[in-house]
Amino acid sequence: LHIENIGRIKAGIVGATGYAGVEILRLLLNHPEVEISALSSVSFPGQNITDIYPNLQGRIDMELVGQEEVITRSQVVFGALPHGLSEDLAFRCMERGVLYIDMGADFRLKDSDEYQRWYGESFKHPQLHQMAVYGIPELFRDAIKTASIIANPGCYPTAAALGLAPAIRSGLIEPEGIIIDAKSGVSGAGRTPTQNTHFPECQDSFSPYKVAMHRHTPEIEQTLTAVGDSRASVTFVPHLLPVSRGILSTMYARRKSHCSVSVVQEIYSQAYENERFVRLLPPGQTADIRRVAYSNYCDISIHEDRRNDLLIVVSAIDNMVKGAAGQAIQNMNIRLRVRENVGIDMVPSAF
Amino acid sequence: LHIENIGRIKAGIVGATGYAGVEILRLLLNHPEVEISALSSVSFPGQNITDIYPNLQGRIDMELVGQEEVITRSQVVFGALPHGLSEDLAFRCMERGVLYIDMGADFRLKDSDEYQRWYGESFKHPQLHQMAVYGIPELFRDAIKTASIIANPGCYPTAAALGLAPAIRSGLIEPEGIIIDAKSGVSGAGRTPTQNTHFPECQDSFSPYKVAMHRHTPEIEQTLTAVGDSRASVTFVPHLLPVSRGILSTMYARRKSHCSVSVVQEIYSQAYENERFVRLLPPGQTADIRRVAYSNYCDISIHEDRRNDLLIVVSAIDNMVKGAAGQAIQNMNIRLRVRENVGIDMVPSAF
Amino acid sequence: LHIENIGRIKAGIVGATGYAGVEILRLLLNHPEVEISALSSVSFPGQNITDIYPNLQGRIDMELVGQEEVITRSQVVFGALPHGLSEDLAFRCMERGVLYIDMGADFRLKDSDEYQRWYGESFKHPQLHQMAVYGIPELFRDAIKTASIIANPGCYPTAAALGLAPAIRSGLIEPEGIIIDAKSGVSGAGRTPTQNTHFPECQDSFSPYKVAMHRHTPEIEQTLTAVGDSRASVTFVPHLLPVSRGILSTMYARRKSHCSVSVVQEIYSQAYENERFVRLLPPGQTADIRRVAYSNYCDISIHEDRRNDLLIVVSAIDNMVKGAAGQAIQNMNIRLRVRENVGIDMVPSAF
Amino acid sequence: LHIENIGRIKAGIVGATGYAGVEILRLLLNHPEVEISALSSVSFPGQNITDIYPNLQGRIDMELVGQEEVITRSQVVFGALPHGLSEDLAFRCMERGVLYIDMGADFRLKDSDEYQRWYGESFKHPQLHQMAVYGIPELFRDAIKTASIIANPGCYPTAAALGLAPAIRSGLIEPEGIIIDAKSGVSGAGRTPTQNTHFPECQDSFSPYKVAMHRHTPEIEQTLTAVGDSRASVTFVPHLLPVSRGILSTMYARRKSHCSVSVVQEIYSQAYENERFVRLLPPGQTADIRRVAYSNYCDISIHEDRRNDLLIVVSAIDNMVKGAAGQAIQNMNIRLRVRENVGIDMVPSAF
Repeated sequence: LHIENIGRIKAGIVGATGYAGVEILRLLLNHPEVEISALSSVSFPGQNITDIYPNLQGRIDMELVGQEEVITRSQVVFGALPHGLSEDLAFRCMERGVLYIDMGADFRLKDSDEYQRWYGESFKHPQLHQMAVYGIPELFRDAIKTASIIANPGCYPTAAALGLAPAIRSGLIEPEGIIIDAKSGVSGAGRTPTQNTHFPECQDSFSPYKVAMHRHTPEIEQTLTAVGDSRASVTFVPHLLPVSRGILSTMYARRKSHCSVSVVQEIYSQAYENERFVRLLPPGQTADIRRVAYSNYCDISIHEDRRNDLLIVVSAIDNMVKGAAGQAIQNMNIRLRVRENVGIDMVPSAF
Repeated sequence: LHIENIGRIKAGIVGATGYAGVEILRLLLNHPEVEISALSSVSFPGQNITDIYPNLQGRIDMELVGQEEVITRSQVVFGALPHGLSEDLAFRCMERGVLYIDMGADFRLKDSDEYQRWYGESFKHPQLHQMAVYGIPELFRDAIKTASIIANPGCYPTAAALGLAPAIRSGLIEPEGIIIDAKSGVSGAGRTPTQNTHFPECQDSFSPYKVAMHRHTPEIEQTLTAVGDSRASVTFVPHLLPVSRGILSTMYARRKSHCSVSVVQEIYSQAYENERFVRLLPPGQTADIRRVAYSNYCDISIHEDRRNDLLIVVSAIDNMVKGAAGQAIQNMNIRLRVRENVGIDMVPSAF
Repeated sequence: LHIENIGRIKAGIVGATGYAGVEILRLLLNHPEVEISALSSVSFPGQNITDIYPNLQGRIDMELVGQEEVITRSQVVFGALPHGLSEDLAFRCMERGVLYIDMGADFRLKDSDEYQRWYGESFKHPQLHQMAVYGIPELFRDAIKTASIIANPGCYPTAAALGLAPAIRSGLIEPEGIIIDAKSGVSGAGRTPTQNTHFPECQDSFSPYKVAMHRHTPEIEQTLTAVGDSRASVTFVPHLLPVSRGILSTMYARRKSHCSVSVVQEIYSQAYENERFVRLLPPGQTADIRRVAYSNYCDISIHEDRRNDLLIVVSAIDNMVKGAAGQAIQNMNIRLRVRENVGIDMVPSAF
Repeated sequence: LHIENIGRIKAGIVGATGYAGVEILRLLLNHPEVEISALSSVSFPGQNITDIYPNLQGRIDMELVGQEEVITRSQVVFGALPHGLSEDLAFRCMERGVLYIDMGADFRLKDSDEYQRWYGESFKHPQLHQMAVYGIPELFRDAIKTASIIANPGCYPTAAALGLAPAIRSGLIEPEGIIIDAKSGVSGAGRTPTQNTHFPECQDSFSPYKVAMHRHTPEIEQTLTAVGDSRASVTFVPHLLPVSRGILSTMYARRKSHCSVSVVQEIYSQAYENERFVRLLPPGQTADIRRVAYSNYCDISIHEDRRNDLLIVVSAIDNMVKGAAGQAIQNMNIRLRVRENVGIDMVPSAF
């Protein structure tokens, strides 16, 4: 990468008017080591970003340009595109020595067959997929430090992986047949209005969707398999919560041998003791999306069902921060040798 | 029972100012075969019910009296009291030949040891417990027809039992190790304000509580055991949803033998074909609390995870209607030979 | 009108898949004197209404047809169309002797110049406008009793007119310069998803729109002028509330002579003492949309600012019920000699 | 003041467990020039602040102490107490040379009679009231620069004053008879749960309260009188919005002479051109609480009703940030010569 440490990092965003794109922008506007170099949008070319997002008035005054211009002007490019559009973008970034952080699904799955099975498409640039590093810092920090392409994880996979990884790595639970009952705020559905995100029908509603068919399933299994020593399988059922922000996953796993919840608590405590953005809650507390909203935290609480010998782990994140933009910036910080929490150290509010 | 079919049914409510009590009142005000005979409240004696609930202005003008007066004036008494207070009330109703419908937990569990284990108290009038009938009409209608004491089920157990009973009864699933991930609106927490139901902290929040320790667990197991042929066990994890009304339960069960989801759909369809208040959704739809709110419906959708060989059933009710007051009136109608849907036939709204 | 009182009233809805249309349908499904004869929709021809509104499953099974078929099969037609499309529909209903109740704006304004000014279009069938009766029963009941075309009022004008009419009629306030600060739930924006009704942006938001330019302004002024003895003028500012249902209007008027708030209370009390659907709240209470939601009530509370000599009236309705579908059915009941509250006597809930 | 510029500012909070107190704490935790010296709480003495506010876990680990200890350890004390308790606290801070910033109402009104009239109490330390500076930086920055006691304004008065001050100062509007229709999120009601902030009753509700009787009325009038040249009077009606954060005020004022809205826009533009935290929206946009939530911005939009010759100004703030904690820190920054936006420069989110 041609990253010269002269002055602030020049960061560009491709797909800046989608929710993931604009959340990266919003956070970077308070990142002391970064300056926004360029923003692109297919939907609103030539308009000012504040025309689309008036909430940003007074903080930025920038016209939306094309992708090429973003690549040209930037040292790091965040690509927030619908899946299938990122490979070419990554390729062009590689050609120019620009760090590429992908917010979409294109580089998350390592196995091209699995990608074909769940997304119905095949890899165009297989060599890029070998370069890509899956960006959950708490699990794969070393690889991120030298990556040229970072596949920023999906929101659900982030919450699931952080919640289950220590238990799997330590052999506390069976990696097969884990049930992940996940609930996400509506911002996860993106910016485009639809009938089921129309306020009068969405408010006071709650429902699952894509039951056991969601594309984040293989991504979760890939990570859990990677941290353990045998193939993991999960039943993954997402639900739509009538809130804007937050994912909470309630995860049920069979214990391998009876190991008390206090031992599990201790193992998790060690696993995350040096992690700024993972908070293992004390026994008796339960993770809550309210307490991580608008922050980069992942809160985890540990429970058990003794009667049925299950370990129950609950994890909560802000789907747009630790589940998307915040984690992307965390990855950028790691790669570009900025202190890891710079720009993403928001303190959550109780109300 | 001394129920004379001259004129309208005289119905009284003990505990009329709690949420369950006032919801029964609200529904009965539009029940053409019922007149409200008396209302009691320990918290607001002597006050008019409209002082506590101004939403009822113009519909009722009645002072809150004592329990004795409610029993004396009524042919049917709905008891909406904290657990532990209903046995004496039921006893007095029995003495007077008054039908008693209990909204609390006192008469739900048949096994006194189980009651002791989960509620920390023992039965005072064991003979009353033998008389009490557990009031889910779709499962136990015949017994309800002649009952003197009806134990109105808990909200979570209603949603769980209706969602799982056909599969268990037909031997489609293993009755052991069922996982019930349930989500309830805040009205289920009752009328008393607390920190975690304080609007600024409750809105935009979502969290589990009493993980695998909720008192509805043995009630669910009792019903599932009753409809099947062997002991059922469940892991039950409730969550608090930032909505007022609704329970949605996502339930994961191991299939006994591989039986396709279309067969399951057909068995459920037959099980509920004559039931006014259970709607089996067509394949491809998912149950949603929005579509049952303020109605007595239970919506059920059937799904599967082929990869892990699980049946996934989703059921949705309004926790205060089918999960409490509506079902209580349904039980009253059945017992007192009123057409079952009278007074509780509300059409849900999409918005 | 060719309305024969044999059996139930045959009611059809043109525009049945919009929010106003489907709310009429939802309420009529519980109206004992009505049967639904036909439903039309330009957007979803040939589909079953339950495909569009799954909440209605189990209550109706009817295919969407064309407008002509609705007219042919019905004794009363509710037209729920965008403005500009109702005159022809009304004309065809008149030709067939079918009662027409219009949910749109086409027949609300009597003055064609005023209509031209605010809607940019002119009357096509001026004679129909002379026949049309403006349907606020509490103010114009006698005219409604014999009307062939009923212009069902807008939601904001209903709340404003009911709140201010007694004060204007009794000469308590200046009819000029009244300020109406109104707040509406999002269902008032209709079924079509837009950016500002997209859940993640709408929730936790609050903002005015069409400040002093909303088309309900002349409609409010027309009614207030009609009930008083001189021309009324209002400043009308609507806001979008992050709730589905409800309008609350806070209205500020200069008192003509100092007349105590208790006298005003008494005059309002007399004005509405025989009205089922208007509830004048006792002194000290304030109107709240929660307490009228999903009901046909209009709650009114009376206040004053002695320091600045203003009368302040607050009125609350459900914008889709008393502000649309409920009032339309109330009008139908009056016109067709059904008891006025039949089918619309819902009791509001406190939670 | 004994403020030595060696190292970070030592800031203490009295009443740290109320909503205003903990919001100051939350913001100061990200203030690079401040360290938290001590926190007091009457309600939870001896507990750790994270026991009360688990959202702060990982960011602070501090036991709640007594007021004296807070004063002793601090260079600046924020007092977030119910009114009537701040004078003694301020007195003790003055004795020790500690800067005191009061979040309550005690020092806001200059006129003791007015204070007596609205709060029913009299000044205990009149000399302190002469020292106190009313802390809206955009209006009174110079006085704040040297103040020892800063009376942090109420939330409603902040929104009203910023929205109206330029128009009054420039003589565009009559200062008498201004109508302020204000709507606040529920966090403004504080931490203590009550019936009307109980989620099931608060959600989907909307209602005014303390109509024309709210104690913020004289505070608003005092500020508007101070910036103009004659006595201002307002009719102030607050409403409770079902959101956690935000105040939006819609303000109606008679224009003194007809002056076009574009001139008003220009005057406001000049008034706030150097203000970081006031954003005058371009013509055609309307202020929205969503776009200022969790930020220190005040957004203002200018409108008119030509038909009734009114200027209509809409202002929006986060009631807990610009309306409380953010403004308090802004005042601290000004007084202690820190750059004004440090620690409070949050970028609002669109969703």
